[in-house]
Amino acid sequence: MFYIFTLPMILKHINQIPVIAEAHGAKYAVLSPGSRVAPLTLAFTRYKKIECFTLSDERSAAFAAMGMAEASSTPVVIACTSGTAASNYIPAVTEAYYRQIPMVILTADRPPEWIDQWDGQTIRQNNLYSNHIKRSFELPVDTSHEDAQWQSNRIINEAFIEAKKHPCGPVHVNIPLREPFYPEPGENFKFERKVRIIENGEITRSIPLNILSDLEKKYKESRNVLILAGQSNISRENQEKLSDWARRKNIPVITDIISNCFNVDTAITKADIFLKTLKESEFNKLNPDLIISFGKSIISKNTKIYLRLRINRKQEHWYVGINEFLSDPLQNLTKTIDVEIDQFLDQTMDWENKDPKYLKSWQAKEEKAEAKLNSILGKNGETLNELSVSKAILQSLPENTNLHLANSMPVRWVNFISGKGRNLHIIANRGTSGIDGTISTAMGHSIVKSDKYNVILTGDLSFFYDRNSLWHNYDYKNLCIVIMNNRSGGIFGLIDGPSRQPESNEWFETRQMLTARNIARDHKLQYFKCTTTTHIAEAKELIKSSSGRIIIEIFTEPDHNKKVFKALFQ
Amino acid sequence: MFYIFTLPMILKHINQIPVIAEAHGAKYAVLSPGSRVAPLTLAFTRYKKIECFTLSDERSAAFAAMGMAEASSTPVVIACTSGTAASNYIPAVTEAYYRQIPMVILTADRPPEWIDQWDGQTIRQNNLYSNHIKRSFELPVDTSHEDAQWQSNRIINEAFIEAKKHPCGPVHVNIPLREPFYPEPGENFKFERKVRIIENGEITRSIPLNILSDLEKKYKESRNVLILAGQSNISRENQEKLSDWARRKNIPVITDIISNCFNVDTAITKADIFLKTLKESEFNKLNPDLIISFGKSIISKNTKIYLRLRINRKQEHWYVGINEFLSDPLQNLTKTIDVEIDQFLDQTMDWENKDPKYLKSWQAKEEKAEAKLNSILGKNGETLNELSVSKAILQSLPENTNLHLANSMPVRWVNFISGKGRNLHIIANRGTSGIDGTISTAMGHSIVKSDKYNVILTGDLSFFYDRNSLWHNYDYKNLCIVIMNNRSGGIFGLIDGPSRQPESNEWFETRQMLTARNIARDHKLQYFKCTTTTHIAEAKELIKSSSGRIIIEIFTEPDHNKKVFKALFQ
Repeated sequence: MFYIFTLPMILKHINQIPVIAEAHGAKYAVLSPGSRVAPLTLAFTRYKKIECFTLSDERSAAFAAMGMAEASSTPVVIACTSGTAASNYIPAVTEAYYRQIPMVILTADRPPEWIDQWDGQTIRQNNLYSNHIKRSFELPVDTSHEDAQWQSNRIINEAFIEAKKHPCGPVHVNIPLREPFYPEPGENFKFERKVRIIENGEITRSIPLNILSDLEKKYKESRNVLILAGQSNISRENQEKLSDWARRKNIPVITDIISNCFNVDTAITKADIFLKTLKESEFNKLNPDLIISFGKSIISKNTKIYLRLRINRKQEHWYVGINEFLSDPLQNLTKTIDVEIDQFLDQTMDWENKDPKYLKSWQAKEEKAEAKLNSILGKNGETLNELSVSKAILQSLPENTNLHLANSMPVRWVNFISGKGRNLHIIANRGTSGIDGTISTAMGHSIVKSDKYNVILTGDLSFFYDRNSLWHNYDYKNLCIVIMNNRSGGIFGLIDGPSRQPESNEWFETRQMLTARNIARDHKLQYFKCTTTTHIAEAKELIKSSSGRIIIEIFTEPDHNKKVFKALFQ
Repeated sequence: MFYIFTLPMILKHINQIPVIAEAHGAKYAVLSPGSRVAPLTLAFTRYKKIECFTLSDERSAAFAAMGMAEASSTPVVIACTSGTAASNYIPAVTEAYYRQIPMVILTADRPPEWIDQWDGQTIRQNNLYSNHIKRSFELPVDTSHEDAQWQSNRIINEAFIEAKKHPCGPVHVNIPLREPFYPEPGENFKFERKVRIIENGEITRSIPLNILSDLEKKYKESRNVLILAGQSNISRENQEKLSDWARRKNIPVITDIISNCFNVDTAITKADIFLKTLKESEFNKLNPDLIISFGKSIISKNTKIYLRLRINRKQEHWYVGINEFLSDPLQNLTKTIDVEIDQFLDQTMDWENKDPKYLKSWQAKEEKAEAKLNSILGKNGETLNELSVSKAILQSLPENTNLHLANSMPVRWVNFISGKGRNLHIIANRGTSGIDGTISTAMGHSIVKSDKYNVILTGDLSFFYDRNSLWHNYDYKNLCIVIMNNRSGGIFGLIDGPSRQPESNEWFETRQMLTARNIARDHKLQYFKCTTTTHIAEAKELIKSSSGRIIIEIFTEPDHNKKVFKALFQ
């Protein structure tokens, strides 16, 4: 594929970037303002075929871009000026790295001769993301030689190819630029020279038949087989494929909320609740001979600990998926299979069905946990506790909502309840599990997919930490922010270690007194405050019927939350 | 020096850290909340002899800690939990690196076996700050072997020694920790075992006599000698020493505001204004044969360009100071002298005096620029422009104030005016010149030095970017925040390149509509809005008599600012 493109003298190798980006499927660019980045800003905004956004806080900008990439399945471009602007991208780049989200990070830089010369906004940017990046490149600063032009074109193509190639991820291109950066007024700025696009041909991965037959043999030898689903953006179609596969074979699928597999027929969603209090005598009924896992992280510590405890038994554990590194969270991995889960399901659909007894053992536990949960919810329905509130929020969500769950407790509360029976897509920054970019990530989703309703459930710390997410001029009519404000990092009041220390209030829970009312006012969002169960009923209606741009802030008492949390594990 | 210290079983090598920190002069620790960091939090807060603070947004926490280190000249400890918490420190660590401010960064980490295993808050922390750190260490995860205990003790000693050794700077200690992190309730937690402290003996650096005599020979051969002062925290005493030295020798000292040398008798403070419009015929009168520079960055681009242009002349340029790298911002460095400036002045005090003609040429230009500035201020006194506002703020500052200048325009406006005749200490994040941590840095100064009045002059973008600086529970009665709100990144409307582009408003200046009123309300600060010159007169009184905790927000018109800015260079 070739594009026509002319180079304004000073911007030779820069103006081809949006052309190449578009050819590789980029639709969006998030540009933060600055002087050194001007050639990139001009190239992207003048190219017109890539939608551009400007967000001033680079930390937030990068998380928003990651949300856009996730929402659109396209490699989103982020570009910033030189200096610590580029450092502020690091939290989101790290999250994108572990979540395998494609992004191309363009950092304008001083030319290399000015590094460490006390010049303004000049740091050592080359290799800045080295710990958490798929690849790092640097464009040549002098492109007068033809080979340097070839190199620039090749690097930009390679950056986009790498970002999109499985496992996807962030790729960095550092771009040293000498002045001048701005075309003279009226200077020709057309995109007409031929730009070479290097296409990356698609491939299909499959399991060779001889390997498949070995796998099938092991599968047949295993009486108790389970599937363990980690964090995943699995499509509706593949959820159904998994559901068919597992139902037919009587195989339990252990999921938590971020796997997005809670609607699989044989899904076990409450393992986190019942595995913690499982008696030794009940262990055998649930012990697997073969674990087949896919996806990324698992929230439930109890699930991981339970399955890890089986480490000394003769057991198979196959991981199905494509990763940059070998992850063995259960400490018992025996095989990795580098295909996507749907491919694995397709190739193994005709494997034998298992005795339903094993599945029923898991389902019996699931039902008991469900009953326990409902009883706790029933008994505590009149207090404003975060479990009941989470349940209410889940009930109020319209079909096909994106539910963004902040880290620390919100993702855990919703995991206790599960999304069973609800047509929801769950999004959570569980690559690094930080509290630094939840709202910005959701904002990215909202800005680019205006037909999709986004609800965030967040604690107060995550919300205020990331309040700069609201600081921009773009429209987002489809975002509803629900804050459970317990005026602290409530998680530390729930878990035993810190809550027993005399320092807990000040040093772990970090009491904070902000409310979101004025922030809503500043950013022209509707605001609704909940302090009673009657308010919650109104909040549910607001969420159901909302056209977005609303903050619902629910004040809960840490003591109520603690009581409910303890009851779950009694 | 030995301390007595007992080790609660689980916290063996951690509890010695505050003891060692204190022995090396640490007075303050900024701890951000988290679970993995708990052993550090407990050790520091229970030790009592180091004052601890908790700030939730790690980006802001690290800048605040840097401010504390600068204010107290002690190595400040910052500690955070595992994951992207540690990444959020990077902007401040980078600034501290280039500003040579001592900090010891303690990052709690998962044990190495859990890296890349999809565990929560787990990233590759070892070497995370590699691009901008004096030294990086990792404590052993298993300290059961005596050698590992020796290693831990040595590393912690080394971290503090390195942070404080000239050139000072940030040092990273990554601390992998296995569970459990919390002592059992009632578990013994006393500091009584002997902790080894490795002291670092002070040394004196001086210029050997034979080298000194070579230098003196060059000095004698040079007719026109000037001193160029970069960013510096020079003490009052050394300012006077420099003043004596230069006055006696008739040597001009070219300064800008961040050098803190504007009260030197022969200081030239307006070079940025008059060098830009200097005629070719006037060049010779100002050309130096010998430049003696010290300090770090120089704001004035015009000064740098002017002195660089002399590159082809036979010229000496000596840099006096201690750096990690060779900085040559004028492109004409011929010698580096690794002693502090006061040592150089002491050893050269008796060098010959120069003909005052050269000094007078610079002073003549200075006077003309002064007159021009006053004329511009006089003509535009009735409009709210940022030059006049900056002048008014400067006039209103009580003696002995710390004036914090945000990047982009505030530091430049005040530089045009200069601090001549005012007893002020200027602080600005000019190590990397970012807008990401100005308010937090000032907050750090305010929290730890309650007897010192701190005034910040900032633009709107820097203020809102860093608004989480206000999100904590500590008292600071001594901080006054002055925001010049032009609703954008005004600098891009002033400089030619971007302002001539049709994209300027949206993509460079980044129009934003926030005001600080609600933020003041949220954080319980007094708020005063200025939209007229009468308000400015009131604001001046407020600044003069303020007991702090106030935001003064001054709305200026970009067009007025542009007019004044242009007039300066006509």
